[in-house]
Amino acid sequence: MVVALTDYLQERQEQFNKELVKVMEQVKAPERLRGSMIYSLTAGGKRLRPILMMASCESFGGNLSLITSSSIAVELIHTYSLIHDDLPSMDNDDVRRGKPTNHKMFDEATAVLAGDGLLTYSFELIASDDSLTYDQRVFLINQLAHAAGPMGMVAGQMEDMKAEKEEVDLSTLEQIHALKTGQLIKFAILAGAYLGGATNQQLTSINDFAYYLGLIFQVQDDILDVTGDPELIGKPVGSDESNSKSTFPSLLGMDGAIKQKEKYVNLAKQSLKKAGIRHSVLEELTDYLSSRNH
Amino acid sequence: MVVALTDYLQERQEQFNKELVKVMEQVKAPERLRGSMIYSLTAGGKRLRPILMMASCESFGGNLSLITSSSIAVELIHTYSLIHDDLPSMDNDDVRRGKPTNHKMFDEATAVLAGDGLLTYSFELIASDDSLTYDQRVFLINQLAHAAGPMGMVAGQMEDMKAEKEEVDLSTLEQIHALKTGQLIKFAILAGAYLGGATNQQLTSINDFAYYLGLIFQVQDDILDVTGDPELIGKPVGSDESNSKSTFPSLLGMDGAIKQKEKYVNLAKQSLKKAGIRHSVLEELTDYLSSRNH
Repeated sequence: MVVALTDYLQERQEQFNKELVKVMEQVKAPERLRGSMIYSLTAGGKRLRPILMMASCESFGGNLSLITSSSIAVELIHTYSLIHDDLPSMDNDDVRRGKPTNHKMFDEATAVLAGDGLLTYSFELIASDDSLTYDQRVFLINQLAHAAGPMGMVAGQMEDMKAEKEEVDLSTLEQIHALKTGQLIKFAILAGAYLGGATNQQLTSINDFAYYLGLIFQVQDDILDVTGDPELIGKPVGSDESNSKSTFPSLLGMDGAIKQKEKYVNLAKQSLKKAGIRHSVLEELTDYLSSRNH
Repeated sequence: MVVALTDYLQERQEQFNKELVKVMEQVKAPERLRGSMIYSLTAGGKRLRPILMMASCESFGGNLSLITSSSIAVELIHTYSLIHDDLPSMDNDDVRRGKPTNHKMFDEATAVLAGDGLLTYSFELIASDDSLTYDQRVFLINQLAHAAGPMGMVAGQMEDMKAEKEEVDLSTLEQIHALKTGQLIKFAILAGAYLGGATNQQLTSINDFAYYLGLIFQVQDDILDVTGDPELIGKPVGSDESNSKSTFPSLLGMDGAIKQKEKYVNLAKQSLKKAGIRHSVLEELTDYLSSRNH
């Protein structure tokens, strides 16, 4: 099972990377800007959001060719958010996935513009996808812009910076992560289900599933920052503690964080059951994300 | 005529500002983020792009209620571009329109996020505008994302930074401005004409008109940086020269720049004639932008 899933992930990653390269060849941007965008897009991301979108689409028996533009769009937006988050005025990170961050490899101005360019192009990509109907494109753009915007991911980053200076409770921590990382994960799963042909009722359940999956992802991230192998996760461990950042382990203790994660896993699986896709690859991915070591 | 146009501009500005406030009330973002976005949105902009969109829509006999979301979207994107351009890593400007720039009033991280939020929300705004058909929304989003993205405005900003370190010729200067300021002006005029009911042939001519109008705007900007009144333009003059920036006057001399502007004015008016809207408010606006003192 685990071996099969690892194969599945690798196959999907490779498939996605091929499509990404093909699409980015159409972006006739100035050389340095283009290089900077491509650098971060190909810096070894796990392609989690595109893979979740594919898995969600397949779970409803959908045609994967329909999700190409949306899956690339969500990865472009994820990548832009990393570039801007790493900036000296934000998290001031020099290394990401074992490589120099965008502003270290290029310069700050280029990194700001590369992020702006990736974000903007993601909408052009969906809007110009002729394999989708007009109403499908509008639905996807509306959802993606909301998820990534000032009431979604950008709000989450803002709240996260604020929380660094104060102690927060569990519900605030959940809210920050639901915005900061959860919204894009939710979009990925929702878009896959929508283009896969899910009913409105199924979309509601899959939305709940996506909410819990986002939290599972984040708890595990926090746990890995304490117990992970720096070689495997591609960054130093213990940074949350040295930054006095509120995390699930800092709020609940390590045992409490693990129990909280198990609670989310159960709730996620219940939502899958409600959506009528209990034994799908999404269930396997839930267990995988809950126990991943990088 | 000039008095009537001044009244027209003021009336349109007020109308737009009311709609802008109403729309931004729907953005339930974290307080500081929201405050930062509103600060730059209401810092005294001329609303040139929305007004051009209105004028273009009216010239084709269109219904102004259709352009509300697009006119706000283009102003949101214009504002985001100013916030990011002013950042220390970019133009490093402390003052804009006589007020502290966004990162001076708030902080750099907030300014980056406010820009990201404005950019992203502009697409949500059009995608969720139920007064437009799905294909209208897709057309507008596609055009706007292309105009603002890595092959449009972002490319222009990148090329502009590169040009600061080298001397450029007239055609390169035209190309930079056609991207950096021209693309959004072009979108504004195109969107107004499209929603106003222009035919495809008229859209082609109006596109040419918008191209020249963008250049007229920029030549006059360069001229004002030499001969303008700092009180009226809200920033010090002579900054282009002290930054050794290539401008129309630096390349062609002041007389040459004025002649070049007249050439663009003639070409702009010819395009209006071709579009069949010779005596429209767009023609008055062309003369106004060509002779403005701020």
